[in-house]
Amino acid sequence: MSSPHPAGPLPVPKTKRGERTRQNILDAAEREIGVKGFAEASIAAITAEADVAQGTFYLYFRSKEDVLRELVLRMGRKLRRHLSLAIVDATDRLDAERRGLHAFLAFVRDNPNLYRVVAESQFVDAAIHRRYYVDLAATYTASLAAAVSRNELSAGHAEVRAWALMGVADMVGRRFAIWDQQTPLHDIAEAAYDFIAHGMGPHRNG
Amino acid sequence: MSSPHPAGPLPVPKTKRGERTRQNILDAAEREIGVKGFAEASIAAITAEADVAQGTFYLYFRSKEDVLRELVLRMGRKLRRHLSLAIVDATDRLDAERRGLHAFLAFVRDNPNLYRVVAESQFVDAAIHRRYYVDLAATYTASLAAAVSRNELSAGHAEVRAWALMGVADMVGRRFAIWDQQTPLHDIAEAAYDFIAHGMGPHRNG
Repeated sequence: MSSPHPAGPLPVPKTKRGERTRQNILDAAEREIGVKGFAEASIAAITAEADVAQGTFYLYFRSKEDVLRELVLRMGRKLRRHLSLAIVDATDRLDAERRGLHAFLAFVRDNPNLYRVVAESQFVDAAIHRRYYVDLAATYTASLAAAVSRNELSAGHAEVRAWALMGVADMVGRRFAIWDQQTPLHDIAEAAYDFIAHGMGPHRNG
Repeated sequence: MSSPHPAGPLPVPKTKRGERTRQNILDAAEREIGVKGFAEASIAAITAEADVAQGTFYLYFRSKEDVLRELVLRMGRKLRRHLSLAIVDATDRLDAERRGLHAFLAFVRDNPNLYRVVAESQFVDAAIHRRYYVDLAATYTASLAAAVSRNELSAGHAEVRAWALMGVADMVGRRFAIWDQQTPLHDIAEAAYDFIAHGMGPHRNG
């Protein structure tokens, strides 16, 4: 089910109006794919939803696969920007992690298509899917290593920690922010924070 | 892309030979779907690979969707059995978690189709996909709560911890046991264990 490799970069809109149209198409595609899934989502439905002609679609994308790839990249950028803004006033790395967990869970509940789009991408373009995680992990690993050197965290394996933290956010987000649309997220984020800050071993100093 | 809801339970083989045939079909389906993906995997290819007639397939399954559902359930059972055996001699819950992480990463590397089969199932039968995680989490949550009452773990939110631990295993497994087929898993499992046991905050007693 893998599609052929993309044949070079996509055309970039030359005007602000063009960029708005391109973003409208992506927004419509995100809703279509999020609701129906990649196989059932059609370019006709996407352009109808975006209120543009089908020909307009092909100004910016070659295929539905192109759109999914771009959605994954856009989701990654949007998530990173959201998390960066959330931690801008953090006092140290642990505080940044705490703020990051709250912000991530809120983002997931506001963007219920995130998981579906990212998960489906692995069956359309495994490299893009992998890059989504690897890019997040690279930034994360560097931040954790720097924090250890500032004594804001205990010594530890920065890369394993980065993937472990992503896993905590991913799975707690799935359970409490997607499958469950009701539970207030504050206490969930605090409980997840307690886990990543202190672990769950008996406290060594009582 | 969701298929119709399954119409009642699947037929159960009446003989040991029949059960072996059914398992052979599931093994072949796991390889086919693991390599080609659900959309491209065909019943004809699965029966050819299992060396049975197409009619034999329909003694046990109604459709390819049935096979995927059964694969997810079988994967869940196989994983739980593997983890139960791995922790049978554990001295306490933390030791069980440590052994569990080693065992999980080894299982993932030996069963590279696990992630793909489970991930694809969400687009074929969302309820089965969710049940895979919910069943694991239910057992896990109960074990963690019991361990807190025995003072083997610090007090904490058992359900959030269960999902967090599943996330750690899932994401560390993806990175180090699937995408990376080379790195020895021992040190990775130990680093993940250190994270879940102690967290990454500066140690409070030095």
